[in-house]
Amino acid sequence: MLTRIDHIGIACFDLDATVEFYRATYGFEVEHSEVNEEQGVREAMIRISGTDDGGASYLQLLEPTREDSAVGKWLAKNGEGVHHIAFGTDDVDTDSEAVRDKGVRVLYKEPRHGTSGSRITFLHPKDCHGVLTELVTSAPGAPAAHDGE
Amino acid sequence: MLTRIDHIGIACFDLDATVEFYRATYGFEVEHSEVNEEQGVREAMIRISGTDDGGASYLQLLEPTREDSAVGKWLAKNGEGVHHIAFGTDDVDTDSEAVRDKGVRVLYKEPRHGTSGSRITFLHPKDCHGVLTELVTSAPGAPAAHDGE
Repeated sequence: MLTRIDHIGIACFDLDATVEFYRATYGFEVEHSEVNEEQGVREAMIRISGTDDGGASYLQLLEPTREDSAVGKWLAKNGEGVHHIAFGTDDVDTDSEAVRDKGVRVLYKEPRHGTSGSRITFLHPKDCHGVLTELVTSAPGAPAAHDGE
Repeated sequence: MLTRIDHIGIACFDLDATVEFYRATYGFEVEHSEVNEEQGVREAMIRISGTDDGGASYLQLLEPTREDSAVGKWLAKNGEGVHHIAFGTDDVDTDSEAVRDKGVRVLYKEPRHGTSGSRITFLHPKDCHGVLTELVTSAPGAPAAHDGE
C-alpha cells in the first residue's frame, strides 16, 4: 500500500548550483548525498517533512553522471524540471506486482537499488497519464521504515 | 517557513479518467473537488498522507476549463504530466516577499485564491531550475492549518 509521497525527483544540470538554490531561497538543507552508478546519477536528498506513516517526504535533486543515463537523456530533451514522483510503500514487491497485474508497465523485472539502500521500481509514464512514477521501500532501519518495525 | 510538500499538481486532459486511473491503480480516493474559474481549472485533490506540520500532502489533478488558461496552454505544449509542485507554509505573504527579495520572480503581486480557500502564489520556473513552484497557506480551520492553532 502506498502511504506517502516519498520524494519528487528533479533533474538538473548542476547539482551543486541547484542545492545552493534550494538552500539560499528556502533554507532547505541536504540530508544525504550519493552517487548511484546503476541509475547514472549524482543525487542530493532534501528532507521537507515527516509523514504519518513514519517516513518522510524529500526533494531528490538529480544530476546525470553520463549523458546516456535515463536522466541524462531526459535532461537533453526536456531541460531542467520535475523528472518523476515517488510513492513510499512498505512492500514494493507486492505493490509493483499488483500494478503490473492491472496492465501498467513496470520498468524493472525486480526492484533495484535506490537511495540509501532502498528498493525501487518505475512505472511507464505513458501508462500513468504522463507521470514517470516510482515506487520505493526504504531500507530496514532507515527513517522511512521505522513505522513498520 | 515552508514545512511540507503540500501537493504535486498534475495536468491532465480528462479529469474523470485520471481520477479513475489513480483509484483503480493505487486505491487512492478523491477527498475534494472544485472548479477554480480564476485559474481556469477543474481539480481533484487526492490526500496521500498527513505531515508533521499538522498538514497533509496531496496529488492535485488539474483539467483546464478553457484552452487559454495557464494549464490549458501548458498541456497543449507538453502533454499530460507534472505541472507544478507546491510547498505549504503558514505565511505565504511573508515567504513570497522573502523569495522575491532574493531575486526570484513571484508571479502574483498578492497571493490569490487556491484550493479550499487557501491562498497561493507561484514562482517563475526559470528562476527555480525549471520547476514551476507554488507556495500555499491553507485556509484557517482547514486540516493543513490545524497545527498552528
